Amino acid sequence: MRVRAVVAYDGTDYGGFQRQNNALTVQEVLEAVLAQITQEAVPILAAGRTDAGVHALGQVIAFDTAWRHGLDDLQRALNAVLPADIAVLEVEEASRGFHPRYDARSRRYRYTLYNALVRLPLGRRYSLHVAAPLDVEAMQRAARFLIGEHDFATFGQAFKGRSAVRRVLVAEWGGESTHLRFDIEANAFLYRMVRSIVGTLLQVGRGDMDVETFAAVLAARDRSQAGPTVPPHGLCLIEVKY
Amino acid sequence: MRVRAVVAYDGTDYGGFQRQNNALTVQEVLEAVLAQITQEAVPILAAGRTDAGVHALGQVIAFDTAWRHGLDDLQRALNAVLPADIAVLEVEEASRGFHPRYDARSRRYRYTLYNALVRLPLGRRYSLHVAAPLDVEAMQRAARFLIGEHDFATFGQAFKGRSAVRRVLVAEWGGESTHLRFDIEANAFLYRMVRSIVGTLLQVGRGDMDVETFAAVLAARDRSQAGPTVPPHGLCLIEVKY
Repeated sequence: MRVRAVVAYDGTDYGGFQRQNNALTVQEVLEAVLAQITQEAVPILAAGRTDAGVHALGQVIAFDTAWRHGLDDLQRALNAVLPADIAVLEVEEASRGFHPRYDARSRRYRYTLYNALVRLPLGRRYSLHVAAPLDVEAMQRAARFLIGEHDFATFGQAFKGRSAVRRVLVAEWGGESTHLRFDIEANAFLYRMVRSIVGTLLQVGRGDMDVETFAAVLAARDRSQAGPTVPPHGLCLIEVKY
Repeated sequence: MRVRAVVAYDGTDYGGFQRQNNALTVQEVLEAVLAQITQEAVPILAAGRTDAGVHALGQVIAFDTAWRHGLDDLQRALNAVLPADIAVLEVEEASRGFHPRYDARSRRYRYTLYNALVRLPLGRRYSLHVAAPLDVEAMQRAARFLIGEHDFATFGQAFKGRSAVRRVLVAEWGGESTHLRFDIEANAFLYRMVRSIVGTLLQVGRGDMDVETFAAVLAARDRSQAGPTVPPHGLCLIEVKY
């Protein structure tokens, strides 16, 4: 049976989702706990690799198992054994061919800012502190240029020789006064694309780049014109749609 | 000059606010950083001792210093040196006799719950996960009995021989569906009073105690009738009023 699950994690202490040699990853922990519970080797497929330090509320994974008890029991067992910074929010049976990455229609990420002169200790693991006043209205106008199908080479790297064209469905600022968030949904993302976009939008918000220049920077397809990439701890994979 | 400051901290890694021998406390860190910056020994007075693991958004402290530069400079220097889990939100000159504890008219605490079947990794440092469905309306009706002047001996311990009478000004549940918060404001609190009240209100919310029984438990002034004390990580000192 192929199982599909929605997973949330606090990425602070992980080297990202995908298994690697030199850091503890979410995938490694999930696979170890699945093996412990099911007594099988259970390789996991995931909708997206999140970078080191990036969080998730809605990562989607799939795996095959011969588990014979209820899926509610599997979920309970997983959550009882998993560390406090990883939780399985939903579990259901999927079709045999379901692939969380290739079948995904779109992914939604959220980048969270705390915009005030003095940093705030609570919530600091989940939001970037920006001390400078921000022109949110200008950031919103700039963000609108992202919507639609564009070559996003300015904001990230495609795999060697592959296309950097992506289709952005949503790009909007929300939240209130000090607690700001940027939601972006696209069919897919380039490596570090969201963090590069947010870093460049912050230049607009600080008045270091005007909105028209932002549009030109996007159109330039030139990585060197992007603003600095913001750190991972403000970023969260919110949802994957199928 | 006497200085009054508002301090926020993530209490996770501290043995509470007040200096003690066997654990690192917020007071100790603040006094060390003040000494480093002002080159004086600067003992701190505070509005309230918060317990180990309890957070603050509005702890109020006072100290005397011969600092000759601007108070903005002092605040900037403090925030530059303090660890990421402590921040000084406001600094101003106070009257010579200002005492953050004795002059306080009231304190407001907030207890935060995450009420869903599965725990949530994000924000777990600041909210208690409660898996059982809660009858918030019943908890709100029970909370109303707390308002006014009562002997709160059921919910906490007064210092030996002292009165357990406190005046509660606000006791209300808020938030939405899964993210619940209980705000309580009183002239002062007994040791662990908020956490004992929340633990007992949760018994009401789960249907293990009815609202009338809650009123009787309060009136009994009998510590053994209270529910279990909830853990500290959901609790935050929000504001001290003068």
